[in-house]
Amino acid sequence: MTQKKISINADRLWTDLMALAAIGADANGGVTRIALSDADQDAHEFLMARMRDAGLRVDVDDAFNVIGTLPAKKPESGQKALIGSHLDTVPNGGKFDGALGVLCALECARTIRENNIELPWDLEVISFCDEEGGHHAGTVGSRAMTGALDPEEILRPGPDGRPSFAENLERAGGDPTRIHNAARPASDIAFFLEVHIEQGRNLESQRADIGVVTAIAGIQRTEVIVAGEAAHAGTTPMKLRKDALVAAAPLFTLLPKWASSRNSEMTATIGRLQLSPGAVNVVPGECRFTVELRSRNAGDMQALQNLLDRHAARQSNWRLQPLYRKDPVRLSTPLQDRVTLAALREGLAARNLPSGAGHDAASFAPHVPTGMIFVPCRGGVSHHPDEAIEQRHAAAGCQVLLRTLMILSGEGGRLDPA
Amino acid sequence: MTQKKISINADRLWTDLMALAAIGADANGGVTRIALSDADQDAHEFLMARMRDAGLRVDVDDAFNVIGTLPAKKPESGQKALIGSHLDTVPNGGKFDGALGVLCALECARTIRENNIELPWDLEVISFCDEEGGHHAGTVGSRAMTGALDPEEILRPGPDGRPSFAENLERAGGDPTRIHNAARPASDIAFFLEVHIEQGRNLESQRADIGVVTAIAGIQRTEVIVAGEAAHAGTTPMKLRKDALVAAAPLFTLLPKWASSRNSEMTATIGRLQLSPGAVNVVPGECRFTVELRSRNAGDMQALQNLLDRHAARQSNWRLQPLYRKDPVRLSTPLQDRVTLAALREGLAARNLPSGAGHDAASFAPHVPTGMIFVPCRGGVSHHPDEAIEQRHAAAGCQVLLRTLMILSGEGGRLDPA
Repeated sequence: MTQKKISINADRLWTDLMALAAIGADANGGVTRIALSDADQDAHEFLMARMRDAGLRVDVDDAFNVIGTLPAKKPESGQKALIGSHLDTVPNGGKFDGALGVLCALECARTIRENNIELPWDLEVISFCDEEGGHHAGTVGSRAMTGALDPEEILRPGPDGRPSFAENLERAGGDPTRIHNAARPASDIAFFLEVHIEQGRNLESQRADIGVVTAIAGIQRTEVIVAGEAAHAGTTPMKLRKDALVAAAPLFTLLPKWASSRNSEMTATIGRLQLSPGAVNVVPGECRFTVELRSRNAGDMQALQNLLDRHAARQSNWRLQPLYRKDPVRLSTPLQDRVTLAALREGLAARNLPSGAGHDAASFAPHVPTGMIFVPCRGGVSHHPDEAIEQRHAAAGCQVLLRTLMILSGEGGRLDPA
Repeated sequence: MTQKKISINADRLWTDLMALAAIGADANGGVTRIALSDADQDAHEFLMARMRDAGLRVDVDDAFNVIGTLPAKKPESGQKALIGSHLDTVPNGGKFDGALGVLCALECARTIRENNIELPWDLEVISFCDEEGGHHAGTVGSRAMTGALDPEEILRPGPDGRPSFAENLERAGGDPTRIHNAARPASDIAFFLEVHIEQGRNLESQRADIGVVTAIAGIQRTEVIVAGEAAHAGTTPMKLRKDALVAAAPLFTLLPKWASSRNSEMTATIGRLQLSPGAVNVVPGECRFTVELRSRNAGDMQALQNLLDRHAARQSNWRLQPLYRKDPVRLSTPLQDRVTLAALREGLAARNLPSGAGHDAASFAPHVPTGMIFVPCRGGVSHHPDEAIEQRHAAAGCQVLLRTLMILSGEGGRLDPA
């Protein structure tokens, strides 16, 4: 069986990427589109206009996920094929994280419609709300869609006491009490496919065009609050002090040792730390910091969390506050095979690799066949104004997504759950 | 020779203290009067009105020190006797740190005038500007008056990029280019005496009413900037990281050990620390913190600074930025003797003790005979809304100041430099 060679429009895709990057652009070349902010809403208006131009039916669900649907001409199963990613960014982030996946999905739907290709499922191009955790934890929209979102979570305040997701959803015209309506049964979804930049250096160093993602690391975040006693730095003798930073410090050295000795892919990071009252001449009365653990192996992650718990329990006045937990997931093997085949047929070099970063795909993987297509990014830099990709890699990711859809709609049409 | 028993008015002093505490009062019982702020200026208006009521001549010098002068009736030497402290506070500080010394000085001048006592010197009641370091480093006004202020220093920005002392001085109506005019020759000053709360627990635990201060610890502050490499916490393997916090951490444990092993009165404090970019999922690219050393022994302080310098030099990408340095000072022994005698004559229990905290007196001690009178404060708590003293101790400090002035103006009139 031969298929007519159909190609996405690489220039149109790049033009869209650059136009989108102008929305929420920072003076230093970065992009700031915190979920539900004005810039994020502007980006979604841009997307919805492009979707309508492409002939898609546009919906916004109760989690503020934006969905552009290309209905199947002869629906076989009543199932939907989901492709997409997110448009929100971290503060002063890059132009491609998330945006590439959404615009590749749009470009695929456009190409399919222009070429009058018949698919056996409704094709949904989706931009998920708040993947980056602009309020509390990330992947809010995708977890709402898979029914895995705790409705209490969206009530928690954002960083530094900023408004909660619920408050900002309401401000944007949504109704936080209806967010559970965004949940969809797994049986309605044929599969989910996401294109994304790698955010690491594997593909670049191996000179590969396409990454076929095998698994997504789990994430466990804990806030540690070490209580000491604030005191005047000039009049409180060393031996009478309860210095919260001095009490916390040994863990800063232990934690990376624990992680490295566990396995080579595991990571442990203290990224945020605050001393109170935080004055040059006051002994710290409190040291508050975040511990983030990541691993593809749930057992390793739990073992490291246990070490942290035991260390804290042996100290006095340590308190641990769980912030966020997402189990590691394996992605669908049949989908990995189809993506690899698609890359092969397109003459592109593909490599299998895991993802250390979290993604909307991790929300879908436990429920429906899920796949991810990575493209290289320069130096592995991401969440930064310097985030960059080559235009040919954007086109390659998009073309492989299209080709995978074609393969799935042909001889590999129906997927058994992985 | 007997002297008529003259007493300060303890109720009037306390009423002034409480009225002053209402200026810049915070909701939680604390006081916020950052130097040159509106609250600080209101406090100085209050003081100047009380000075005028007391018959003092009021001046504001070019460093915004407020000076109320009671001229000598028969000036013998043309010298001035200086008494006072400061009215500014740390953010959300207490009611007595600084304020007690200024209002005790005012109450003494009032009592002396009301009793028609003849002094051999002009008596100056002074409130020094920015003792607490509300902009860059503290004791700005007293260092300006002793000619020890580097005029460049007042141009440095305040904490978190807030305006410099110079900018706020201008906003308050002063002229920062004229600050050198506040300097006065040491030969014009007979002595300086300051009443202050102890800010420690020595007097309380020894049930003493009066502390006779022997020395003031030196202070040396350094900002340490440890450069690492910011990176994605999920996609950067542990062994490829340059984590600035992990690099800095061993010092947090070493520093207190160094200080404790040096001598028991020495202190070393890391009170302020900032990670950049400071996100839960980003490896810290920079760790920036302050190291403050204090000792009554200049050699010990330098030895500890040398350990810090050598530690930093052995690391890669550590940078040390000197912030502030004040040498330890010994206070005048003849003045200590007069204060002890005054306490004895008033029937109060006095103890010698050093000061771990810095004071305006430390600016004067290298230049003119300088003394300090401490009164106990509850639990040693200071720089905090809970800062508290007993009314009888406020009165005792004020009465000992008056009695010391009487002794100095009588048989112990002229002091040889200590």
